[in-house]
Amino acid sequence: MSMHRLLISCPDAHGLVAKVSQFIFEHNGNIKEAHHHLDDLNKRFFMRIEIESTSLSCSIEDFQSDFEIIAKTYNMVWYLNDTSKLKRILIMGSKSSHCVADLLHRGHENELEGEIIGVLSNHQRLSKLASWYDVPFKQVSIEANTKEADIVSMTQAVIDFKPDVVVLARYMQIIPQDLCKHFEGKIINIHHSFLPSFVGANPYKRAAERGVKLIGATCHYVTADLDEGPIIEQDVVRVDHADSADDMKKMGQDIEKITLAKGLQYHLEDRVLTCNNKTIVFS
Amino acid sequence: MSMHRLLISCPDAHGLVAKVSQFIFEHNGNIKEAHHHLDDLNKRFFMRIEIESTSLSCSIEDFQSDFEIIAKTYNMVWYLNDTSKLKRILIMGSKSSHCVADLLHRGHENELEGEIIGVLSNHQRLSKLASWYDVPFKQVSIEANTKEADIVSMTQAVIDFKPDVVVLARYMQIIPQDLCKHFEGKIINIHHSFLPSFVGANPYKRAAERGVKLIGATCHYVTADLDEGPIIEQDVVRVDHADSADDMKKMGQDIEKITLAKGLQYHLEDRVLTCNNKTIVFS
Amino acid sequence: MSMHRLLISCPDAHGLVAKVSQFIFEHNGNIKEAHHHLDDLNKRFFMRIEIESTSLSCSIEDFQSDFEIIAKTYNMVWYLNDTSKLKRILIMGSKSSHCVADLLHRGHENELEGEIIGVLSNHQRLSKLASWYDVPFKQVSIEANTKEADIVSMTQAVIDFKPDVVVLARYMQIIPQDLCKHFEGKIINIHHSFLPSFVGANPYKRAAERGVKLIGATCHYVTADLDEGPIIEQDVVRVDHADSADDMKKMGQDIEKITLAKGLQYHLEDRVLTCNNKTIVFS
Amino acid sequence: MSMHRLLISCPDAHGLVAKVSQFIFEHNGNIKEAHHHLDDLNKRFFMRIEIESTSLSCSIEDFQSDFEIIAKTYNMVWYLNDTSKLKRILIMGSKSSHCVADLLHRGHENELEGEIIGVLSNHQRLSKLASWYDVPFKQVSIEANTKEADIVSMTQAVIDFKPDVVVLARYMQIIPQDLCKHFEGKIINIHHSFLPSFVGANPYKRAAERGVKLIGATCHYVTADLDEGPIIEQDVVRVDHADSADDMKKMGQDIEKITLAKGLQYHLEDRVLTCNNKTIVFS
Repeated sequence: MSMHRLLISCPDAHGLVAKVSQFIFEHNGNIKEAHHHLDDLNKRFFMRIEIESTSLSCSIEDFQSDFEIIAKTYNMVWYLNDTSKLKRILIMGSKSSHCVADLLHRGHENELEGEIIGVLSNHQRLSKLASWYDVPFKQVSIEANTKEADIVSMTQAVIDFKPDVVVLARYMQIIPQDLCKHFEGKIINIHHSFLPSFVGANPYKRAAERGVKLIGATCHYVTADLDEGPIIEQDVVRVDHADSADDMKKMGQDIEKITLAKGLQYHLEDRVLTCNNKTIVFS
Repeated sequence: MSMHRLLISCPDAHGLVAKVSQFIFEHNGNIKEAHHHLDDLNKRFFMRIEIESTSLSCSIEDFQSDFEIIAKTYNMVWYLNDTSKLKRILIMGSKSSHCVADLLHRGHENELEGEIIGVLSNHQRLSKLASWYDVPFKQVSIEANTKEADIVSMTQAVIDFKPDVVVLARYMQIIPQDLCKHFEGKIINIHHSFLPSFVGANPYKRAAERGVKLIGATCHYVTADLDEGPIIEQDVVRVDHADSADDMKKMGQDIEKITLAKGLQYHLEDRVLTCNNKTIVFS
Repeated sequence: MSMHRLLISCPDAHGLVAKVSQFIFEHNGNIKEAHHHLDDLNKRFFMRIEIESTSLSCSIEDFQSDFEIIAKTYNMVWYLNDTSKLKRILIMGSKSSHCVADLLHRGHENELEGEIIGVLSNHQRLSKLASWYDVPFKQVSIEANTKEADIVSMTQAVIDFKPDVVVLARYMQIIPQDLCKHFEGKIINIHHSFLPSFVGANPYKRAAERGVKLIGATCHYVTADLDEGPIIEQDVVRVDHADSADDMKKMGQDIEKITLAKGLQYHLEDRVLTCNNKTIVFS
Repeated sequence: MSMHRLLISCPDAHGLVAKVSQFIFEHNGNIKEAHHHLDDLNKRFFMRIEIESTSLSCSIEDFQSDFEIIAKTYNMVWYLNDTSKLKRILIMGSKSSHCVADLLHRGHENELEGEIIGVLSNHQRLSKLASWYDVPFKQVSIEANTKEADIVSMTQAVIDFKPDVVVLARYMQIIPQDLCKHFEGKIINIHHSFLPSFVGANPYKRAAERGVKLIGATCHYVTADLDEGPIIEQDVVRVDHADSADDMKKMGQDIEKITLAKGLQYHLEDRVLTCNNKTIVFS
């Protein structure tokens, strides 16, 4: 069943829910799911409403232009998303395959609300995996001595894929600021630690050295500040003194792939809104 | 800040959210929190709305009588709860103290949205604990040879306390059907297993015998069917082959007290609605 | 680094650890890992010792025949496993692919201490997946009207694969008693519930009906009693009232695949011993 | 049943387990539980052996002097702990009561392998709680303008209690370096975050600002470096965008008290050994 999802963020005001739900009622919209959240600190209001597409008594264009009047009154940032148009997902990987393979398999089994349109990597290693799943594969190497030019090529490759969302599935390379800007709120990364613990490189090694009793993974939006973007989802798994950094790396892979898939799915289902550097996840 | 909470359950209908939120808006109500749920199987709609009490432009009596018109139209089961009137909590315990002590401490620290008005037990053991916390204690023994009469006395004692909610904090005795009926949806039990595993007596012993790798606790409403009432909250903890039934009992106590407190708190905050034998928990 | 693993189960006796460790010391064995467990109820002792293969001062045959003297004295059930001989893993699947794909990928990435030698299924659906991973695929249909003969064919197919361990990766068909017997302690199943909750068919549907707040998965050895074999590993994930049986099924798949892989890996690494219907997992 | 626990830490050497277990066997010791661990990085070996006290064929003094010969040969750090001598536990608290109340209740119910000998606090607030449990209470204020002298008084008060272990149950004041030194490996703290996240003050506020999806607690030994000591136990609980810093604080209290009690119990049962800044927990 096709849905239209109305996502709203605006300054808090009296009667917002009444106004919006009355509007949908007047346009005959059948609400399947609705979530609200008031951010008390920022006095900002957030809504997510799922409307059965066929229930609407007017065209989407009319619905949108009618709603624009309310939106202006309340100073809303809003969009209306049609679930019949699948989001285009670009996966970026490197050498390690656990996240990429897991996502490709979910795509193949139609578990993702989206379409995987390509795998982009700085190594050739995952090309066979992608071809198995009939997903276009492109390699753009990032070499130390040609780094600047390589990053330009990579950036162009990303743009050429015309993705709606870019998933860094253990890509391990820095994303340039202009790409972060261009796809703001649309690049999702999996970091292999429970952020803000172990920001940066080699988190498992550092976790082993610190002697933590739980290791974790963090799925977050990418911003210009490395590992500092809004967190979508996190999870942990128990470790003990007998687990070396290598053991942790292996154990962490399961948490990484599950957490990334969960965070991505929230994004694909338009369940994530951001407020400053935090996410509201209407799960 | 005092709140009025509007709890609604009714057959699904077009425009319900619009109608209710419009009504609240017209009465100038300031909504602090709102949750909806549509039970697809039973085509039943559930709402919980928290309204700032002082924001209402009319008396509560007028608000209620005005709302009754909508309620009739949509065939609603509803109630309006005033958070300034604390719910009266009766704790029923037996010999083991972990849940009772934990609840008394939370009450003492004003962590519970309610007032503990008494501890009722079939043993004397917890009387000193209750007196420490200045909570009235009453013992009604349940003896094998006078069981019927004892249960009548216990039932009367419960009623005399005039509780809004009765918490079975490892009470270990059967609650008679008429008491279940009288306080339907108002008696909360903690069962020391992850239901529906190990219904009935000695769940830790049976868990150890079965060799499970996780043990749990279940907080649920009490119905005439033992351990079959609607589940409010559950949690588990990992065990292994080295843990005996006694070890599991000790480890389980922490899960029991936390899960009971969490379930009770949901109830006190009017977050729990029931649909057949299931709960909707607007957490 | 190649290891020999000494697994011992015997009636409890004074000086067991001293005797065994002294024996290994005398044969110059370098112990990398050692675990003991005394089952108090059954007065039975369990050991797992990992010895660096190259450290031994004699041949494995001599080590074994020497050890047999101790073993007889203490009435030990024991075996010595050489990690350089990879266990042969047969995967049995049906239509659903999440567990099979996850195992094949782990095999492909050399994460499993074993070699996947085949996928056997009653449906054709997974054949392409298996061929992607260069793993032999065999289909043996199980049809209602030829069930008895089909099961004989299936049994023969399993035996022909000469597996060391058979993994039921959501196989969904009954395993005949003679096959259970033939591969006792060598058939591993993933059940899609937190056993002993929801033994049998449609656990997610029944979990949704019961309104549980956590769903789970159980990895266990297969015995003649359906879903009653020794439990190797279990895990759970949180659900709520908004999750339908279908949602639970999807959410459960991640727990199923992780729990199965974890349980299988324990088995492959000779970490699992059984005592009556329970497992000792030296993790 | 009274036990003697032999705790050993030494450079790795061939035949260690054989030597020690042979020694215990020769002294007729009945081993109830044994754990080993080889730290591969530091090439250091760790053992914990529980021996039934009455099974020994000689006096403890003879056992110790005999063992000293082995200990010297292998350069062991070791001690033998008699479980019939309960460890003296000093609780240090401040204003918040959840951890202190939880520990006092466990002490009262004989759940701790130790005896709570006092509560020391910089505030008067917990005195009534302590007196309820018949535990001596002492207040030593720490005031801004007399801080140095106050810390001297506090240090003296701690020493006067003659504790075997000091538990900082949300004490919130800096422990001076000489006290850290004097009770090295004997002061246990609960930090209200999942370390190394949010070292220092106000972790819940910072967790809310960062928008993490899990909050945690860390039980660790206190060293001169604030929040940097060896971690004994950690746990987490899920939070979401609707939880304010205050909500997190409340939710975190349950994790704090459970994690502290668990870490303390490991220590009391001599299950914790340290290797550089990490713990080995033989649970």
